[in-house]
Amino acid sequence: MLDNLAEKILKGEKTAVARGISLVENESKQAGELLKKLYKNTGRAYLIGITGPPGAGKSTITNALTKVLREKGFKIGIIAVDPTSPFTGGALLGDRIRMQESGTDNDVFIRSMATRGSLGGLSKKAKEACEILDASGKDFVIIETVGVGQSELDIAQTADTTIVILVPESGDAVQTMKAGLMEIGDIFVINKSDRDGSEALGVALRTMLHLKMTKESDREVPVIKTVASRNKGIDELYDFIIRHKTYLEKNGKLARKRKENLLKQINELVNNKLENKFWTNDRKNKLESKIDKISEREVTPYDFVDELFH
Amino acid sequence: MLDNLAEKILKGEKTAVARGISLVENESKQAGELLKKLYKNTGRAYLIGITGPPGAGKSTITNALTKVLREKGFKIGIIAVDPTSPFTGGALLGDRIRMQESGTDNDVFIRSMATRGSLGGLSKKAKEACEILDASGKDFVIIETVGVGQSELDIAQTADTTIVILVPESGDAVQTMKAGLMEIGDIFVINKSDRDGSEALGVALRTMLHLKMTKESDREVPVIKTVASRNKGIDELYDFIIRHKTYLEKNGKLARKRKENLLKQINELVNNKLENKFWTNDRKNKLESKIDKISEREVTPYDFVDELFH
Repeated sequence: MLDNLAEKILKGEKTAVARGISLVENESKQAGELLKKLYKNTGRAYLIGITGPPGAGKSTITNALTKVLREKGFKIGIIAVDPTSPFTGGALLGDRIRMQESGTDNDVFIRSMATRGSLGGLSKKAKEACEILDASGKDFVIIETVGVGQSELDIAQTADTTIVILVPESGDAVQTMKAGLMEIGDIFVINKSDRDGSEALGVALRTMLHLKMTKESDREVPVIKTVASRNKGIDELYDFIIRHKTYLEKNGKLARKRKENLLKQINELVNNKLENKFWTNDRKNKLESKIDKISEREVTPYDFVDELFH
Repeated sequence: MLDNLAEKILKGEKTAVARGISLVENESKQAGELLKKLYKNTGRAYLIGITGPPGAGKSTITNALTKVLREKGFKIGIIAVDPTSPFTGGALLGDRIRMQESGTDNDVFIRSMATRGSLGGLSKKAKEACEILDASGKDFVIIETVGVGQSELDIAQTADTTIVILVPESGDAVQTMKAGLMEIGDIFVINKSDRDGSEALGVALRTMLHLKMTKESDREVPVIKTVASRNKGIDELYDFIIRHKTYLEKNGKLARKRKENLLKQINELVNNKLENKFWTNDRKNKLESKIDKISEREVTPYDFVDELFH
């Protein structure tokens, strides 16, 4: 059955891809087997990370960029990581809104993932979902995350090209720096650039980028202006993505970058497994029987954890 | 020596507290021992989490609130979690700026922590730093984080009272929801409320809070307006914090909340230890010798991790 599913995913069948991602998302035992089967067919898609503060227009940029990529004949996968809790239903809502635009196109696959479970879990799942899209023959996989928290930044950084979207309202440059976005951007976009303050933000960004904060010293990090809602600047954005792609491919940087990400991925897999193995029923019971004593400060959590390991 | 340090921390000596937090921050082996010694003297401080998007004025609110708390005679500890990478030096800068205001006051202790290392690491360290401040006799410990990423939200949620700061520019209500802030706030603050859009944000917030999204069904989540830079609304904020504190204390909710946080803390301690134990030199060497084959997709990371566990 899994062989069959893997085969269909490799053919790019939409429903199979959806099922594969669901396996990953539900942490089904079959997910691991499926990913093993698909792995040798991954590594072909180019990963684009899109991140920035809430309200910067990440979804609009993703949609506009998807249109441009489709016009060039590329197949696109999109994973939108939505830090929304179960009850707001943000992920589902997102899916529905986007469906209307690209849902009928067989070569665009969109999926929102919510941060339902634990943190580490999400990052792991998002990457695995990208692998499935990659194996399904997508040329570009876009991973869109809110980019202020470390976890979301981590996810965005697993991309080959990370695009940071800002808006004039994003606050002054110092705030941007504080949010940790400066260091992860391969390309900066000032969206809604028809608004007040976009000139100033551009100057501040360029100044800071010049100071030293680029990832690669032999490459200038571009700052692009867009008005995504009116498709302005999206072609330029596309050009800069391709330029960055070429830059990475030319001198072995892409392989190096991907190797680093692979190391992170292995670490996550290990941690996940360690945790699952550790919490045997016996240990869970111990925790349950001791938690009140720890609460009342008769036992320290540090001593208790030492004890669990003995 | 550690006994001596612990004793000085319990007496509230500033330099000792600083050294204790440094031990925690550097993941020194002594940190665990120190925390064991201090643990029975923790649980007295009331934890206030302050979170919100970059530029919302979290630091200004923290400073203004600190002043009010000091006027009432309380001792204050502040941990500012700064998602800044090493080179921007944000944490250091933050310390310096704040020092000028409260540095001479012996009953205010301020420390910024940067997200230098890994995620989980930061959350663990921040909580441990709070424990040290708690043991040092602070009445209130304020933990300030940028609140859009899941990790920062997690940190903010470990507080007894979590305050979400928004500004009219924070974007519309839907964006706030998406950022996951709605669910974690015990008190909402609209800062810079003299600006355009604060009325609309207030209405939207209240509507959403009414829909159902409060943590406790028997309590209305307040929305307060402030202009922190001019100390407006800070007394009201203080009142609502005390009200929430009383509410939690009255019906055993505080104890329950703290127990949940304790469970999380134990989990983090376990994960930390598991990881350190797992990565023996032997396993590190195995990884090094196999990573190229995995990169070249001859071996899948999933099979490799299975192998590491055998």
